[in-house]
Amino acid sequence: MSPFSDQAEKQVCHLGERNLIENISDWLEDCGLPPPAGIGDDAAVIQANEDKLVITKDSLVYNKHFDDQAPPELVGAKLLKRNISDLAAMGATPSYAVIACLLPPSTSILWLEKLYSGLNSTANDHSISIVGGDLTSTFEDLAFTLTLLGPGPTKPLTRKTANPGDTLWVTGSLGGSIVSKHLKFDPRLEEGKWLAQFEGVSSAMDVSDGLAADLLNLCPENCRIELDSDAIPISEDAESLAIKTGSSAIKHALTDGEDYELLFTLDASVHPIEFIQDWKDSFQTPVSCIGKVTTRKSIEETTVQYRDSLKDFNERGYEHF
Amino acid sequence: MSPFSDQAEKQVCHLGERNLIENISDWLEDCGLPPPAGIGDDAAVIQANEDKLVITKDSLVYNKHFDDQAPPELVGAKLLKRNISDLAAMGATPSYAVIACLLPPSTSILWLEKLYSGLNSTANDHSISIVGGDLTSTFEDLAFTLTLLGPGPTKPLTRKTANPGDTLWVTGSLGGSIVSKHLKFDPRLEEGKWLAQFEGVSSAMDVSDGLAADLLNLCPENCRIELDSDAIPISEDAESLAIKTGSSAIKHALTDGEDYELLFTLDASVHPIEFIQDWKDSFQTPVSCIGKVTTRKSIEETTVQYRDSLKDFNERGYEHF
Repeated sequence: MSPFSDQAEKQVCHLGERNLIENISDWLEDCGLPPPAGIGDDAAVIQANEDKLVITKDSLVYNKHFDDQAPPELVGAKLLKRNISDLAAMGATPSYAVIACLLPPSTSILWLEKLYSGLNSTANDHSISIVGGDLTSTFEDLAFTLTLLGPGPTKPLTRKTANPGDTLWVTGSLGGSIVSKHLKFDPRLEEGKWLAQFEGVSSAMDVSDGLAADLLNLCPENCRIELDSDAIPISEDAESLAIKTGSSAIKHALTDGEDYELLFTLDASVHPIEFIQDWKDSFQTPVSCIGKVTTRKSIEETTVQYRDSLKDFNERGYEHF
Repeated sequence: MSPFSDQAEKQVCHLGERNLIENISDWLEDCGLPPPAGIGDDAAVIQANEDKLVITKDSLVYNKHFDDQAPPELVGAKLLKRNISDLAAMGATPSYAVIACLLPPSTSILWLEKLYSGLNSTANDHSISIVGGDLTSTFEDLAFTLTLLGPGPTKPLTRKTANPGDTLWVTGSLGGSIVSKHLKFDPRLEEGKWLAQFEGVSSAMDVSDGLAADLLNLCPENCRIELDSDAIPISEDAESLAIKTGSSAIKHALTDGEDYELLFTLDASVHPIEFIQDWKDSFQTPVSCIGKVTTRKSIEETTVQYRDSLKDFNERGYEHF
């Protein structure tokens, strides 16, 4: 049986990423686990005797996630930092990594050495040990898959656990990552660990597919998000990109992928001004309150309520398929 | 900078797999660890607070490790079983898996569902939870990478820790896996766990690149292996394949990859007859003593000493590049 189909409706690209993930969850039946122990969150929380470990896996493919313009050192760093961002979103501490290299025969040894140099230096920055891997030869695609794991906090941060009345927050600024940030971001690791210790954080995730898409992944079924569009922190790169693309900076901030910021909700009992003060005592990273969580009264209501000029906005961010 | 080179001597295929692994170990500098904590054994032993965990990662690529003839259910099973075999070789118990799917857009949904069905059923057989993964779109290559981990024994079995005087053993029979075994093997999981508890096992690994190649990976620098060619258990498939290929069955047993048997050494103090009796009390899997470990007197001596007609045999088994 061929692994490929020539009928569009039978191909994975027809399903799209979210549906494919849902299908896989169904296919796994009883050997899958509900999140955060299984598929459906930034990473999975597993139990090793008495200890909680958090594990995640992410890949990079040549000409999808990097190209000839990207210095190989930054590609190696990005491979690790994407995964660090997933652990950060659950408040875990990255400790060990294993890497699969899928290499066409003509892959340059020097290029690969430079990639490992970037990987190495990022691993050292975070005291991560790279303990193993796998080398496999491919026909055309050059790809890397990294698995990262490390000890979790007592209560890992999770998606879809906010409650009506909670406030919605995001770190840093959003949009335009393609200009340079997608290769040069700092995963919000310390911020994530801090949030996991902070009483009153009701849910969290990292923004990697664009805010609009990731809000759908953060919001519980019975809730709705009232987004304060004016409060969304728009990056300078989103502003400059908008001039080139003819789109608006706010749309870039909502739909560009690879922000690697943290998106989280705070219990209604947490006073925003006091929270900002606590945050500023620990971090220089900006933090913004961008909306609130309300009750979703019917399934006819959209998950996200956009204001004003974005009223009809319904884009879904970056789809990987 | 392009990740590819058009000069043969600058390409990864020029280095070969073993050299590339050595290079990567060097490139990792201080974020790598010596085996069994890092690169160089079947899997890596990591520390999670008080617990030992063993982690491994292995990939499958379309038209390298499986083709249109392979039922997708068996491809899924193989993806997991290859990794189980690596943990078995260290005496660990597989518990959790994460999978990266690298899929061209035209990948068939039905084929993928069948792959997951095989994966699922093998995971259930061994009480393994599949806790997460990653979906990535590629241009041409269809590949899967699986990371498997689970608790290790108090003393994980390792490569390169045999001593002169030890006896050399292998489970099952070798060669001809391409006929069917590469898709239908049973990883020697219980056997590996049993060996890890058995006093006197001095080293172990799984035979995945062919016995001749894997002996080089098992044998410590200061030792030599005196192989008793007549005692090598040759599979029926190796015999039948030899008729077709015009090679000899023993050469197939020495160089064909994907046997997924366990290769191990026993301390000189362990009496072979008593060991065989203990083994038979626990397993129906055949076990054979195929040689002994001696001292390597000089670096001019080959690592493996072949007898009789195989005197000049120096093949290195399956090279992945």
